[in-house]
Formats: sequence, C-alpha cells, structure tokens
Amino acid sequence: MVRVAIIGASGYTGAESIEIILRHSEAELTYLSALPEECGAVEEVFPRFKGRCGLQIEPLDIDKLTGLADVALCCLPHKVSMGFVPKLLKAGLKVVDFSADYRIKDTEVYEKFYQVKHTDTANLKRAVYGLPELFREQIKGACLIANPGCFPTGALLAIAPLLKNGLVETNSIIVNAVTGISGAGKNPSVKFHYPNMNENIFAYGIGTHRHMPEMEQIAGVIAGSDVNILFQPHAGPFDRGILSTVYCHPKKKTTGEQFMKLYKDFYAGEAFVQVCSEAPAVKNVAGTNYCHIYPAFVKDRIVVFSAIDNLVKGASGQAIQNMNIIFGLEETLGLK
Amino acid sequence: MVRVAIIGASGYTGAESIEIILRHSEAELTYLSALPEECGAVEEVFPRFKGRCGLQIEPLDIDKLTGLADVALCCLPHKVSMGFVPKLLKAGLKVVDFSADYRIKDTEVYEKFYQVKHTDTANLKRAVYGLPELFREQIKGACLIANPGCFPTGALLAIAPLLKNGLVETNSIIVNAVTGISGAGKNPSVKFHYPNMNENIFAYGIGTHRHMPEMEQIAGVIAGSDVNILFQPHAGPFDRGILSTVYCHPKKKTTGEQFMKLYKDFYAGEAFVQVCSEAPAVKNVAGTNYCHIYPAFVKDRIVVFSAIDNLVKGASGQAIQNMNIIFGLEETLGLK
Amino acid sequence: MVRVAIIGASGYTGAESIEIILRHSEAELTYLSALPEECGAVEEVFPRFKGRCGLQIEPLDIDKLTGLADVALCCLPHKVSMGFVPKLLKAGLKVVDFSADYRIKDTEVYEKFYQVKHTDTANLKRAVYGLPELFREQIKGACLIANPGCFPTGALLAIAPLLKNGLVETNSIIVNAVTGISGAGKNPSVKFHYPNMNENIFAYGIGTHRHMPEMEQIAGVIAGSDVNILFQPHAGPFDRGILSTVYCHPKKKTTGEQFMKLYKDFYAGEAFVQVCSEAPAVKNVAGTNYCHIYPAFVKDRIVVFSAIDNLVKGASGQAIQNMNIIFGLEETLGLK
Amino acid sequence: MVRVAIIGASGYTGAESIEIILRHSEAELTYLSALPEECGAVEEVFPRFKGRCGLQIEPLDIDKLTGLADVALCCLPHKVSMGFVPKLLKAGLKVVDFSADYRIKDTEVYEKFYQVKHTDTANLKRAVYGLPELFREQIKGACLIANPGCFPTGALLAIAPLLKNGLVETNSIIVNAVTGISGAGKNPSVKFHYPNMNENIFAYGIGTHRHMPEMEQIAGVIAGSDVNILFQPHAGPFDRGILSTVYCHPKKKTTGEQFMKLYKDFYAGEAFVQVCSEAPAVKNVAGTNYCHIYPAFVKDRIVVFSAIDNLVKGASGQAIQNMNIIFGLEETLGLK
Repeated sequence: MVRVAIIGASGYTGAESIEIILRHSEAELTYLSALPEECGAVEEVFPRFKGRCGLQIEPLDIDKLTGLADVALCCLPHKVSMGFVPKLLKAGLKVVDFSADYRIKDTEVYEKFYQVKHTDTANLKRAVYGLPELFREQIKGACLIANPGCFPTGALLAIAPLLKNGLVETNSIIVNAVTGISGAGKNPSVKFHYPNMNENIFAYGIGTHRHMPEMEQIAGVIAGSDVNILFQPHAGPFDRGILSTVYCHPKKKTTGEQFMKLYKDFYAGEAFVQVCSEAPAVKNVAGTNYCHIYPAFVKDRIVVFSAIDNLVKGASGQAIQNMNIIFGLEETLGLK
Repeated sequence: MVRVAIIGASGYTGAESIEIILRHSEAELTYLSALPEECGAVEEVFPRFKGRCGLQIEPLDIDKLTGLADVALCCLPHKVSMGFVPKLLKAGLKVVDFSADYRIKDTEVYEKFYQVKHTDTANLKRAVYGLPELFREQIKGACLIANPGCFPTGALLAIAPLLKNGLVETNSIIVNAVTGISGAGKNPSVKFHYPNMNENIFAYGIGTHRHMPEMEQIAGVIAGSDVNILFQPHAGPFDRGILSTVYCHPKKKTTGEQFMKLYKDFYAGEAFVQVCSEAPAVKNVAGTNYCHIYPAFVKDRIVVFSAIDNLVKGASGQAIQNMNIIFGLEETLGLK
Repeated sequence: MVRVAIIGASGYTGAESIEIILRHSEAELTYLSALPEECGAVEEVFPRFKGRCGLQIEPLDIDKLTGLADVALCCLPHKVSMGFVPKLLKAGLKVVDFSADYRIKDTEVYEKFYQVKHTDTANLKRAVYGLPELFREQIKGACLIANPGCFPTGALLAIAPLLKNGLVETNSIIVNAVTGISGAGKNPSVKFHYPNMNENIFAYGIGTHRHMPEMEQIAGVIAGSDVNILFQPHAGPFDRGILSTVYCHPKKKTTGEQFMKLYKDFYAGEAFVQVCSEAPAVKNVAGTNYCHIYPAFVKDRIVVFSAIDNLVKGASGQAIQNMNIIFGLEETLGLK
Repeated sequence: MVRVAIIGASGYTGAESIEIILRHSEAELTYLSALPEECGAVEEVFPRFKGRCGLQIEPLDIDKLTGLADVALCCLPHKVSMGFVPKLLKAGLKVVDFSADYRIKDTEVYEKFYQVKHTDTANLKRAVYGLPELFREQIKGACLIANPGCFPTGALLAIAPLLKNGLVETNSIIVNAVTGISGAGKNPSVKFHYPNMNENIFAYGIGTHRHMPEMEQIAGVIAGSDVNILFQPHAGPFDRGILSTVYCHPKKKTTGEQFMKLYKDFYAGEAFVQVCSEAPAVKNVAGTNYCHIYPAFVKDRIVVFSAIDNLVKGASGQAIQNMNIIFGLEETLGLK
C-alpha cells in the first residue's frame, strides 16, 4: 500500500484527491494537513465524506509526517508551495506538486507572471512535468512532479500530435477555453457569487493568464522549437470541465482523415485520452480522468476540441496517475 | 411625473427598482443613494445599465433629496432602515420601505426575531402593510408602506382566500417554500459560492426564519384570529422565484371545484394574481410582478401552490405597485 | 467474481449501474441488453464510457444470458419488467428489479396506480423490498428484490425511526420532496427541455404520484399499522438528488435532543445513513450511495430532512447494495 | 399606433416579440398566427402571459390579416418564410423577416447551405439586412427587412469598426461563440434534454454552421472586399446570450488605446452598442437589446469580445428596432 499524505487538503483539489484515494485499491490516506483555521475532521470540513473517511486534517508537522507517508500530494497554492516542497523532499517523500512553482523552468518568466522571486531553483531543475501521455519515461524515476495546470493539460493534449510531427505553424496557435467554476477555488468572491455567475459566461485573464507561458514552454518542448500561443480562458456556468477549442494553421495540405489517423496513432494505448469521432462534451468527462479529443479540418485550418474535468485530469486525477507511475502501480488504479 | 428616490440603490432590490422605473411612463428616477463605498455611476455599479441610466449613486444627503423626489423606495436592510425612514418622512416624502422594520406591529416579536430594539414605534403604528390585493384601501392614503417580505407575499396570497372565509384550521398550516438565490442578496458567502450552490438544494432557517412571525401576523389580520404557521424555506439553484407549497386542513368537506371557484372569485379583477388550472412554475413569473396560484384538494387536505419572482412581486415590483396606488396612478404602470 | 447482467442498460439507471460495477472489486459486467434500437457498443451509447468498457449492449437473449451471469439488475420500466423477471428467475439468476412491479403487494392498489393488470403475482408474493437498512435480514436470502423507488427511499429513511417507535401520528404525515431531473429519465420532453426546466421549479403528480402508495405500504409495515402520507413531489433545476422535507405530529412531547439520539441509535452501524447535525444538502450526497438525515423539532412538530442521490441510493447504488448482501459480499463494495 | 402582426407566434422569438410589444408605447399587437396545432389563447400557449395578453393565436388567414396590421414580424423558420413573405408584402404590410431566407444575396450559397431552391428571388433582391447600426439609412425606406441571425449580429458588431477601417487581415478572422440554449428553439431534443445539457458545453456545426456565409457576406459589404471567417459556435448551459470572442490579425501596429478610441467613435451615439472597459458578461445584456463590446490587444493580435441576448438583439429586439426605424418612431421604443 502506498501511503499518501495530502498537504493543503482543505481545498477542492484536496477533496478530489481524498475522493480518488478512497477508491484506490493500492493506496491509502495516512496524513492530511491544512492551515490551522481549516483543520478538523475530514467529515466536518467536507460533509460529503461523512461516514467515508475518519481522518483529521491537521496543521502541517513535517516530523510527524515523516515515516507516515510515502508520497505527498501537495495541493498548496502558487508561491506557498515552494516553501514546503523542499522539506517534504528532505523528509524522504516523493512529491506531486499541484502548484505552478515547479512548472516554469525559466525563472524570469515565472517571476514575471507570478510576481515573486523563485526560492527553490535547485528542485525546480529536477522537477518533471507530469503529463504522463507525453513524459511518462521521465516521470517514472522522478522524486518531484510538477503536476500540470488544468488549461495546459487540455490544450497540450489537443495539440501535441500536431506539434510533435511539425504539422502546424507554431506562431499562430489560438487556444480558446471555457472552464467550470470549481477551477476558481473554494473562496467566495463577487464574480463567482451564485447570482453573478449563474446564467453567465465571460472572458477573463485577457493576455495575462498564467497558464499561457506554461503552455508555451511545454509546447516548445514537444515541438522542439519556440511556440507562440494566444490563450484566452472564459468562465462558464457549470461546476466541472474545461472545453478547449484550438485553432491552428497547417503547414501543408492534409485531409481530415489523415489527421484523425494521426491522432488515433499518437494516442493508441493511452487509457485516458480518447480520440472521438465527434465534438466532445464536458459532461462526458466530468468526474473522470479522461480527455476526449476531436480534431477537425475546417476551411484550411485545423480546429481541435478537447474536454477534461479540471479537478480530475486537470489536477487530482492526473496527480494520482503520476503517483501510480512513480510507484510502479498500474497507471489507471483508482481512476477507471 | 412622480419623482422617485431610491435609498440603498446598490443592492439587488435597488437594481430591480431602477429597471422598473426606467420603463415606467409616469415616474422617473431623480435621486439614488447608497453607502459611500458603493457609490458611483449607475452604469459602473451595475454594468447592465450601461447606456440606459445616466444617474449617479451618491451618499445619502437628506437636504439635497428634499425637493428632488416625491417618494423614496427605501431598500435599506433591516435595523438600518428605521434610522432613516423618519428623516425621509419628515422631508415630506412618501416612503415605501423594503425592510422588516415596519412590518411587525408587535415590537416584542420584532425585537425577539431581529435582536434589536425598535427605535421608531411612532411610525411603526401608522405604517400600512403593502400587500395591495389585501390592503388596497389602507395603502391609498398611506405615507409609509411596509413593503412585504418575499416569502410572506407568496404564502399570504396563497392562503388569503381560505383564511378570509374561515375554511381552514388555523393551527396547522405548513408553508414549504423554495427560493432562488437572488433572495440572499449581493454579498458573497460560502453557502452561495457558485460551486457550493450550483446543483444543490437545502433547507435553512429551520424554526427561526424571520418571515414566519410576519406571515403569522398578517394571516391573523386576514383570518380575524390567531394563526399558527410552520414555515420552512429552502434555497434552490436558480436566480429568481419563490415556489410556495402550502398545506392546510379544511374545516369542512368541500370539493376541488368549490375551492377553484373561491379563488377565482377572490382574485377576480386583480391584475397581478392569476389563478391557474395547473401547478405554477417559477419560470412563468420570473421577471414579472405576477403571482400564479393553484389550489388543489388532495386526500382531504388543501394544498395551495404559488409562484412569484422574489425580486419583483416579492420586493421592487410590489413596491412600485404600492407607489402607483399611493399616487393615484394606474396600478399596473411599469409592471405589465 | 459475481457476474452481473444489466437488463435495460441503455437508460440512466443502466448507465449508473455500469459506472458502479466498473469500480466494484468483486463483481463484473458480463451481459448488457436493451431494446434493439438502443443497442450498440457501450461507449457509443454512453460516450462517457469511451475506453472504460468494451462491452456491447445487445437485444435480450435469455438463452445466451443463462450461464453468463449470476444476477440481473433489471432496469426495465414499470409494466415491462414483470414480463421478463419470471424468465430471468427461471434462468437461475437472482434478480434486483428497479421497476415498481414487485413493490406493491396489494395488486388492487398496483392496478389502480399503474393502470395495468399484474401478470406475475406468484413472484410478487416472494419479492423482498430492498431497503437494506430496514429489511436486511429478508434481503439476505432473497431471489427477487424489489428495489425501492427513489422518493420512498428518501422519505422512508427519514421517518422510519419515528414510525418504528410509534412516536408520531400516522394519519397526518406530509412528505414534500424536490428531485433533480435525471429522475425523469432520458427521453426528451417539453417539460424537461433545457430552456423550460432551467431556472425553473414546479410541483407535479399532485395527489397522484405512484410513489405515494409505495411509501404508505412500507411505512405501514414499519409502523405495524396503517399510515397515511400526503406526498408532494417537485422538479428542480439540477441533475441529481432528492431533498425530502417530512412534517409529522409527535404523539407526545419530546425534545430535539431525544430525537437526535433516537436517530443516531437507530442508524448506528449503518454505513450509508448519516445522521447530521444540520440540514443536509443534496450536493453532499450527489454521486454517492449515502443518505444524509437531519431531524428537527419545530413548533411542536417534527420536521425531518433527508437527502439522497436519486440515481444511486435511489436506484443503482441501492440495487448493488442489495446485490452485495445477497451474495454475501461486503455491503459497501463499489459504493464507498 | 403601429399595428403589429406576428406570424409564427408560438415559438421563442414569437414570445419575445409579444413581450416587447406589450411594453411598447406606440405599437400594439393586433394579429397572431401559428400552425393550427399550436394555436390557442396566448395565455394558454405561454402561461407567462396569463392576465397580460388577451389575444388568440390563430391559423394564418391573409385576408383577415389585411387591414388589421401595418407590419408583420415574420418568425417562421427558414424555407417556410419565403412561402409567406410575398403574400404579406402583397397584402400591403411591411415585413421584418426573422428567417435566413432574405439574408443571403447569393442564391447559390443559400441553396448550398439551406439545401432548398430559393423561390422568391424578386423580394430577395430588395430585402435590406436589418442591422441598424450599420445599415440604418437603407432600413428607413425598406418594405422588407432580413432580420440578422443571432451569431452574425454579435460577430459583426464586434468587427465592423475594424473592417470598415481596413485595419485587419480579412482572410484569417476567427469567431468563437457560445450561445445559450434558447437559441435552439422550443422543440425538445436529445441534445437539449435537461440532464444532457445541464453542466455541459460542446461545439457544434463544425465547418457547416449556416451563419458562417451570412457573416462573410455582410462582413464583405462592410469591408468592401471578400472576407473569410472561421466561425465556430458552442452551446453552453444557460438560457440567453451569445458571447463572441473574435480573433484577428491587425494589418499594422496599433495600440490598445487607439483601438478603444476607434470603437468608441464608431459607436458614438448608438443607443444599443456599448463599448466597455472590460470583458463583457452575457448576464449584463440578458433580457435587453444591448450589445456590450470590448476590444483588446493581445500579443500582436486583436481580440474583440461581444455579448448580446440572442432572443433580443439577436432576434426580436432587433426586429422591433428595425420596425421603429421603418415607421419613423424613436428607435429605442419598447427596448430601453
């Protein structure tokens, strides 16, 4: 049994991680921590776990944690995470980090978009970007996984086959995405007050969303050259899911059938990426670790649609997929 | 033209009042006030008024207001309202007050449920309860209207024909109601954070909701004797509307047809109360000042269903209906 | 491994059953059938199973089924079910039947509410009502389970402790319930067309809902005497969940604390019934087999709130809980 | 008083037109028609008009209609409309046609996308495209208005200032739009069954949506040269509104401030187009005839956001705006 600690267990990705580990046949929760004011019995913090989980969420105590767990799912926010990850690693745990702190390799870019100095560049260097469908081999031996952002997961899975094969212009990719509101986290705000968000949809983060440089970095790794992405997120009136609509210019004329075959071949054998024969719907992936993709050829452009659950494949599910890989477990455990 | 001031214009009932007055052919907005931190151009405070209303919301200045308006729609919260209403009356304005401060005639009950001493008992005495379908004559000559609560409006219109005619036991009435979330006001909270409220429904205010004594008081006036009501509100995942399901025991055997005729006769000539031949749906009254009612006879019990929009018939629309009556205008102006 | 067949696999309860069995460690799907026009690969019929289930849904062939499965989850509609259940039993399968055909013991009542003659009274007699928290012992040895209706499940769990202990008047119980729209099944209709149902709530089945006699029969069994229930369902704008608000008159004075203790004792040791210390929210049980209950004492009346997921504890989850009991498995397998 | 007939009054755009005309101070409904099976009292067909409209919807009788109305709002579907419009014109009525039949000037394109031969090319030639902000002068003298499609309205208002001033490349415009479900009409379907559409979002009409050639034609008229638009619609879980996100390549370097000024100048004096200083939200225009626009400059691309209500500015509101213009009324009557 892999013993799992969740650091920052009181938020939405913490809850989703608890939910998945409870169903996991070869992993068990052994330690949960959060800020002191958010501690308490799991079933008090999240009433949906009443009778399902007897653990307490407690203030982080690294000494206590050491020896209690084999892996930490670190669900702390950006900037906070890099303060704790070094301690978790030092305590001998594998770490899957949900924050952006170990995703952006270029600290200048990180510091520009996150407005803080990076304080753990040593670990940043060895962190592996945890998108298993693209970087499975590196993940296998890693101690520290930078679990991808939700938008990058959906967008990168959508365009990886094109970038890897050099089929599209890399200076004019547009990623238009709509996310459900669980992506905004659990803290109440004016924008996401029910009477404001219900029956509403709007764009945000125009030109400034932090997932844009992350997408560009990883897209560049896949393509082997610089990639320029215009990423525009929107918030829509639903709980879970991200629908990405990606527009690209092909480098040369290809047919829709050729693209479809390319995608099916690229993702052959992947449990969690399904190439569909029609436009995906977020409801079909909600609550699952699956990504549904449909590439189309429209008016000499390629339009790729992808759907994921932002809390599962876009966060906790992917983290546990990474955990399964690191510990040599069947990759789909707890996630089918 | 009736000149209308809105005091407390920055909340949902303020916005709804603005919306209605903008369409009103014989009334015009002349003054809007709110707390200093919520002031600004109407179209900044509420982007839906961009290009539709050029007014400013400004900190309340009674001197300035005097002479600018004939009537104040006072959208202040409970307890705050009774601090300002005396000044508005003194300035010579008619006042339609949205708070509970002038609804509960028994100050002991008021003080128990609202946990504050009543500071304006003089005006409390002469305030008229502004449910036009039941108290139109008193409203005509009134200077101060206590605009009814949203739940009491739906419930009282549902049971008034029964109470007025002494047809039901007055010690066992149950009002089960579900409200949309605009009823909770504009301030963000954990309960009404979109990911908490979406796809959810729950009861609240169990045994303690402040609209219970208000219902009982007015029901007592209608019945001419004490009435005991068990009122249980629920919050449901929609913006607007209250569906009330009222359960009563008839005093003697009557048929469904007799009840239907009773309701149709009782509300004959009323523009805003429609007796339906099937269960009402909140969507059919959303955005309108109408109340749809359907009385049914089930297993020797009477079950009456009513639907209103909590922000219109349950607040701003009813206030303007009251205003129309006071100023001798056609009662439906701005509201059809 | 228990081999599971699902008869009528193309509807919502079929899909939910597939979802649960896919996560079940000691049961496996071996046969799925539906009407010929609804057959095909599971992942075509339900895109959410893409890559998760390789089975075909095929037209029912009892001969083929025999020997392939140990138990049939029979998700056929009322009236249709009793045509197939005898054949499934004859083929040697245990049957958990989702329809109402084996729930109502009094065929006269059945025939009045379902408007059809009962054609399988032999099996009706030996069918066991599958509410494990109340009838676990009988379920253990049963060949045919009448899986309870969704509304009766929520209502009966809410009032069983009161009825069992003779604490309430049995002639004046009111069950007011709101259900999500998955309860209406998968066939499009005007009422449940998105623009009609969204932002809406309304009552239906006034005085005629078929779950009323089912509730009364089982409540009578629990109480040991006739019970009269006024049941009023409503449809609300969400996918999953039933919130029941049950109003009763206590026979004698008792305190809130006494009731709370009664409930905690009554459901002590039950995995799936959780007695809460505040009003339950359907979102906390959505997607789970749990029932959250909160009993309150208001103005000399008892008001009990219960929340379940209509597709899980109200249908497929409870069916699999029954299956687990019949086959001597841990009762919570696949359902935690 | 302008006397208004609504042909095809039983659908959503018919209902919205009724709603607006009821509030219109210088127009009145005099005749409503629909298919025989959808006729009846307005308040039976649409319960929300109970007590608000005493008219009957009746089978179309051109003879009766002649003399009863000055203008017909023709809410018939594509293909059907061109069978009736010639008769309405012959009867001496002005016609505002909601269908696509008189929008596409090139009958070859029309016949390709609508799969039917055009049978009224005479009137097609003289029909004026009813987007008042761009074609007000032609509308003034017109007898037949082709009321724009909902998506073209939102997209064209977003890009008109750019096209008119030759500021963007016309071969690479992408219009990504999300519409609420009222746009799908009132007939139930699997896709828009509540449990399918709720909590869902998906793309549709990939490469084939009929509003694409309409957008391109009118964009071409505005630009004075061919315009190629990649239009991708999505359906989102809300009733009303279209959010368009339009991506363009500027021809030369310009600043965000210059674009903002361009937009403000272009729409100066337009009542219904508001240039905003942040991303528009559909909820702010829902139920209104307004279009909110925000142009942004991101990574050398121009991204323009626009929000409208598909049933108002995208259909009935715009039709009545056109009607106001034709009859020399104040353009905003009934629509403020």
